[in-house]
Amino acid sequence: MNTVIKRFEHPETGRVKFTDGVFAPRVDMCLKSTIPAAVNKAESSGRIDAFDLKNYHGLREYFYDSDTAKILEGIAYALKLYPDEKLQQTFQSWIGKIVSCQQPDGYLNSYISGAAPQDRWEKLNTLHELYCAGHLIEAAVAGKDLPGGKTLFDAVCRYADHIDSIFGLEEGKKRGWPGHEEIELALVKLYRASGNERYLKLASYFIDDRGTEPCVFPADEWNFEGMKVVRQADKPVREQDDAHGHAVRAVYLYTGMADVAAETGDVKLLEQCEKIFDNLCKKRMYITGGIGSTFYYEAFTCDYDLTNGSLMYAESCASMGLVQLASRLFDLTGKSKYLDVMETALYNGVLSGISLSGDKFFYSNYLEVDENSSFYNFGSAERQPWFSCPCCPTSFSRFLPQLGSFIYSISDDELFVNIPAANEAELLIGGQKVSLEISGGYPYDGKIIVTVKNSGRFALNLRIPSWCRSYSVRLNGEKSDSCRFDRLWEAGDKVELLLDMPVEVIRSNPKVTSNSGRIALKRGPLVYALEEIDQKYPVRELLIEEKQEFKTEKISGLPEGTLAVCGRAYHEILPSDELYFSAVPEYEETVFCAVPYALWQNRGKSSMCVWNRCK
Amino acid sequence: MNTVIKRFEHPETGRVKFTDGVFAPRVDMCLKSTIPAAVNKAESSGRIDAFDLKNYHGLREYFYDSDTAKILEGIAYALKLYPDEKLQQTFQSWIGKIVSCQQPDGYLNSYISGAAPQDRWEKLNTLHELYCAGHLIEAAVAGKDLPGGKTLFDAVCRYADHIDSIFGLEEGKKRGWPGHEEIELALVKLYRASGNERYLKLASYFIDDRGTEPCVFPADEWNFEGMKVVRQADKPVREQDDAHGHAVRAVYLYTGMADVAAETGDVKLLEQCEKIFDNLCKKRMYITGGIGSTFYYEAFTCDYDLTNGSLMYAESCASMGLVQLASRLFDLTGKSKYLDVMETALYNGVLSGISLSGDKFFYSNYLEVDENSSFYNFGSAERQPWFSCPCCPTSFSRFLPQLGSFIYSISDDELFVNIPAANEAELLIGGQKVSLEISGGYPYDGKIIVTVKNSGRFALNLRIPSWCRSYSVRLNGEKSDSCRFDRLWEAGDKVELLLDMPVEVIRSNPKVTSNSGRIALKRGPLVYALEEIDQKYPVRELLIEEKQEFKTEKISGLPEGTLAVCGRAYHEILPSDELYFSAVPEYEETVFCAVPYALWQNRGKSSMCVWNRCK
Repeated sequence: MNTVIKRFEHPETGRVKFTDGVFAPRVDMCLKSTIPAAVNKAESSGRIDAFDLKNYHGLREYFYDSDTAKILEGIAYALKLYPDEKLQQTFQSWIGKIVSCQQPDGYLNSYISGAAPQDRWEKLNTLHELYCAGHLIEAAVAGKDLPGGKTLFDAVCRYADHIDSIFGLEEGKKRGWPGHEEIELALVKLYRASGNERYLKLASYFIDDRGTEPCVFPADEWNFEGMKVVRQADKPVREQDDAHGHAVRAVYLYTGMADVAAETGDVKLLEQCEKIFDNLCKKRMYITGGIGSTFYYEAFTCDYDLTNGSLMYAESCASMGLVQLASRLFDLTGKSKYLDVMETALYNGVLSGISLSGDKFFYSNYLEVDENSSFYNFGSAERQPWFSCPCCPTSFSRFLPQLGSFIYSISDDELFVNIPAANEAELLIGGQKVSLEISGGYPYDGKIIVTVKNSGRFALNLRIPSWCRSYSVRLNGEKSDSCRFDRLWEAGDKVELLLDMPVEVIRSNPKVTSNSGRIALKRGPLVYALEEIDQKYPVRELLIEEKQEFKTEKISGLPEGTLAVCGRAYHEILPSDELYFSAVPEYEETVFCAVPYALWQNRGKSSMCVWNRCK
Repeated sequence: MNTVIKRFEHPETGRVKFTDGVFAPRVDMCLKSTIPAAVNKAESSGRIDAFDLKNYHGLREYFYDSDTAKILEGIAYALKLYPDEKLQQTFQSWIGKIVSCQQPDGYLNSYISGAAPQDRWEKLNTLHELYCAGHLIEAAVAGKDLPGGKTLFDAVCRYADHIDSIFGLEEGKKRGWPGHEEIELALVKLYRASGNERYLKLASYFIDDRGTEPCVFPADEWNFEGMKVVRQADKPVREQDDAHGHAVRAVYLYTGMADVAAETGDVKLLEQCEKIFDNLCKKRMYITGGIGSTFYYEAFTCDYDLTNGSLMYAESCASMGLVQLASRLFDLTGKSKYLDVMETALYNGVLSGISLSGDKFFYSNYLEVDENSSFYNFGSAERQPWFSCPCCPTSFSRFLPQLGSFIYSISDDELFVNIPAANEAELLIGGQKVSLEISGGYPYDGKIIVTVKNSGRFALNLRIPSWCRSYSVRLNGEKSDSCRFDRLWEAGDKVELLLDMPVEVIRSNPKVTSNSGRIALKRGPLVYALEEIDQKYPVRELLIEEKQEFKTEKISGLPEGTLAVCGRAYHEILPSDELYFSAVPEYEETVFCAVPYALWQNRGKSSMCVWNRCK
C-alpha cells in the first residue's frame, strides 16, 4: 500500500456509549422506536414473506430487499449495543428467510427470482439488483459475529462470487455496473471481512468501468439527455471533477472510491475523490450539510444553486452518506476539514431527518417551509412515519446505532476525538485497551473534559473545529499550546478543552442568490432555525437585527439542555397583500427565538426558516 | 345566453398593423424568420411526410401533428397579414398531405395511424391525440377562408364528428378526456366557425367529465401520487379553486372553460374560472407573467412558491396561454385587471421567449441566470433554435401574427384599446368600418395619441393600467375627466392619453421568500433586468440603491427606442470565497444599468437577474 494514504479505523459498534444530550437520546429512540417500527413494517408489508418466492402480487418492489437488508444491518448493530432476545430471534429468522431464497448458483434477490426472473442482470440501470446486493453484504458483515450471522455471511460470499463470475472485462464475463451505487463500498467491506481479494477487484472494476464508452445500458433505458449525469456515468469516474447527479448514489460512489483507494493505495483515485468532495462542500452543499438541490431526480444541480423551498431536496439518506464519505476521507488524509463537514451534516442535516420520537421522518430536509403547503415531504410539511420508498427510515435504522463509531478515529498509536460528545468508550489502540470518558455539554457547551481511565501510551488528538475562533486546552489543569498529547497516560489523567462558542451571523457567498440579503445563525456546530410557533409574527415577516448580542436561553418542549438563540428583530408591516407592490414597507421592533435546526417540527406543525432576512 | 356575460370580440388578423417599436419588429421577424424556419424544420424532420403513413422509423413522435398544425395556423395568419405566393403554396400542399391521412371514419392522426394503430383512443393520458386534434382544428378555423382552407376545415369537421361519436356519457359512447387540454377551446372555435352545436356540447363534456370518478385512465398510467394534480384531474373542474399542475395545460383548460361559459351563459363556470385566475395571478405568477414554478412536470407548485433560478420553469407557451386566457376573461367580464395581467405577460414573459432575430427560443424563462451553468433551457443559458419537443418555437409561429387581435376588444358599439401600442387599424364596430391610428412611443413613452380617421358613432374606452398612478386625457386638446368617449366621431378627432411612467421599485409579498430583501425595477409595463454585460461587476455582487432618482437612457445594441434604466448601486467586496462565512462584507459605490427583461440575452451570453439586492 502506498504510504501516503493513512488508514485510521473506528471503534466497533457497542464500544462507545453516549451520555450526551443529543446523540444518546437519538440512539436510544432508534433502538426503542425506529428499528421496531421498521421491523413491523418490513414484516407486514410482505418484504420478509417475499423471500418465499410465492404470492407475487403486492408483495414485492424491486428495491424491497434493500430495505430488509438495511433494517437487518441496524438490528445487528442494535444487538451489539444492547443484546435483546426478541431482536436476536428476528435477526435469525430473517436470515433464515433470506438464505432460503438463494439460488443454486448463489444469486439472491427476492424480486427478480420471484417476480421477474427474465430480468436477472438485464436491467442494471433501473432494477437495483446490485444495490440490493450491496446492502445485503453490509448487513452480513455487520452481523457476521452474532449468533446465526455466519449463515448470511457465507451466503453473501457465495452471492458475491456469483456476481464476480458474471461481471468484468475478462473473457466469458459481461460488462455492467449499477444504476444505483452501493455494491462498490460493500464489496470492500466484504473483502476486509473475508480477506478475499476477488471482492476488492470486483469493486475496482465497477468503479473503473462506470461511465466508459460504449455505455453498458441499452439506449432505450438511457433515453434522455442528462440521464448519464444523473447516474454519475457521463464520463469515467476518474475524470469526474464535480459532485453531480442523484446525491445519494453520488456519495455512495465516492465512498466506494475512497475505500478502494484505501486498499489499493491508489493515490490518484483518492485525489479525484477529494477533488469532487471539494466541489461538493464548497459549492453544492447546504449550510446544514444537506446535499441535492432538486427534487428532480433527487440530484445535485450546479455550483451555488442552493434553493431553500419546496423544490430543494437534501435527502436524509444523502446527508448520512455524506457523513460516511467525510469520515472515510478524514481517515485516509487526516485533514480536519472533512470532520468539519461530517460534524455539520451530523448535527444538522442528518438529525433533522428524524423526529425526537424516532418514528417519523423527513425524506427531504428543507431549509424553509410553509406549514400550509402540501409540497413538502410527499404531501405535508410534517415528518411522516413511512414512505412508499422508505429508504430514509431504513437508513436511520442502520445509521444511528453506528453513531458512536464516527466520533473516534484510531491508528496503532493515535486516537482522534472527532466529535467531543459526552460518552464512555472502551477502545483498542494498537492492541492496548483504553477506557475513556468524555464529559461536558457539547454541542451546547464548549467545555469538554476527556478522562483517560487506565494507563497506556498513545497520542490523543483533539480537534479544533473550523467554526471555533478561540479555545484553550489544559492537561491535568496545566495550560497547553497543543491539542495533541503523545504521552504515557495514567488512570485519571484529564484533558480539558474549552471551545469559545458565541452565536455567529453567517452569510452565503453572493453567488448563492437564494440567500442573498439573508443571514443564518450558528452556534458551535449547530445551525439555528426560526420556527413560527416561537415567534409573535409569521417568520416570513421577520428581519433579524444583525448587530446585537444574541442570547441563549432554555426552551420548553425540547430536550433538556437544548439552548435557543434569542434576540431583537423587526416585524415588516405589510403595505399590501398584493403579490408585487411598490409601496415601501415599515418595520416595528420585536423579538425572535431560534431553535437548533435538527429539532424543528417536534412541537407540531409550523412554518420554518433557516436563512432569514436581516436589518 | 345569460346577460351578465359580456362578449367582446377581437379584430381579425390582418386588420391591425403595428407601427410601434416593440410589437411591429417582433411580428415582422416572425413572418421573415420564425415561420420559415419552422416550415423548414417541419419538412426536414419528416413531420409532413409522416402523413403518408409510410416509413415509420424516425419520422414520427406522438406530438408531431401538433407542431405541424401550429405552424400551419401561423401560416394562415401570416397570409392574412401579408399575402405571399410561396407560403400560400406551402399552406395548400401541407393541407393536401394532412387530409390524405384522414381515415374513412374521419380519424386523422399521423402517429397513431402510421405507427401505433392499436393505441387509437386507448392512451388519452399520454399520447396527445385529442391535443393534436385541437391544434388541427385551430389551424383549420384560422385558414378556413384562405384558398384551399375549406378542404382542411371540412376534414376537421369530419374528424370532430368522429371524436363526438366516440366520447361522451351517452349509450354507445365511452368516457374520455385528454391528458393535455386544448381540444376544449378548439371545439368552441369550431362551433363558432361552423354553427354546429355538437362541437360545443362535446367541449362541455370534456370539461365536465374531467376529474370525476371513476378515473377514465387505467391505473398503471396513473401510478404516482400527484399525477392527477399535474393533469388538473384531482377533482371535477368546477370544484378546482387554484391553478395547479402542468401550467400550459392548465391555462388551456381554463380558456376552454371561459369559452364554453361564453357560449352557454354558464355564469358559475365563468366564476370558477375567475376564482382560479385570481389564485394564479395573486399567488402563483412571476412578476414577468411567467407561470409554472417547477421544471418537474412543467407545473405550478404552491402559493407564493416562486423561485428564480434554474429550477423554475415559466414556459414560453404557458405565458402565451395566459395572454389568451386573460384576454378571454376581460372579454367576458370587462374587468380591467385581466388586461393588466395580459399586458404584463405580453411585454415580459412572452417576448423574453424569443430572440429579436426571431429564430432562437427560451423554453423556460428564468428570472435569474448564471451564464456559466448548463442547467438552463435544456443545456445552455442561451436561447436555442429548436428543441426535441419544439412546442415553444411553434407556439410563437402562431402567436405573434395574432398579436394585433389582442390589443383591441370590440362590441356592437364599444371599442376598448387594451394596449396602446402604435398601430393602424381597420375595425368593424357594429357593422360600421372604423379607421383608427394610434401613435406614440408606448411602452417606452406614456404619451399616446388615438386618431379616428373617419366619422361614426361608438364609445372609445381607454385603459388606465394598474401600474399607472397619474395620468391625463384630452379630447381634441381639451382636458377630460373620463377615459370613455361615447360620441359621434369626426375624421381627425384625436384623443390624447398621458400616462405617468416613472421607474418603480417593486417588492414582493414577503411570503415569496425567494425575493425577500430584493427589489425589481419596472417602468410602465416593462420589467427590467440586470445583464452582466452592462455592469462593471458580477450582477450577484451588486446592490441597487433603493432611494434615488433613476435615469432612463438609450442603449446601443438593442432596438432603437429601447430605454435602459440606470442609477447608483453598491458593489459587495467579498470577505471570503467560502460558501458560508461570518465575516461582514464591505461595499463600494458603483453604477448599474438595467434593460427590459424581454430583451435580455440578445447581445451574447450573460448572467442576468431580475430580483436584485438593495441597500
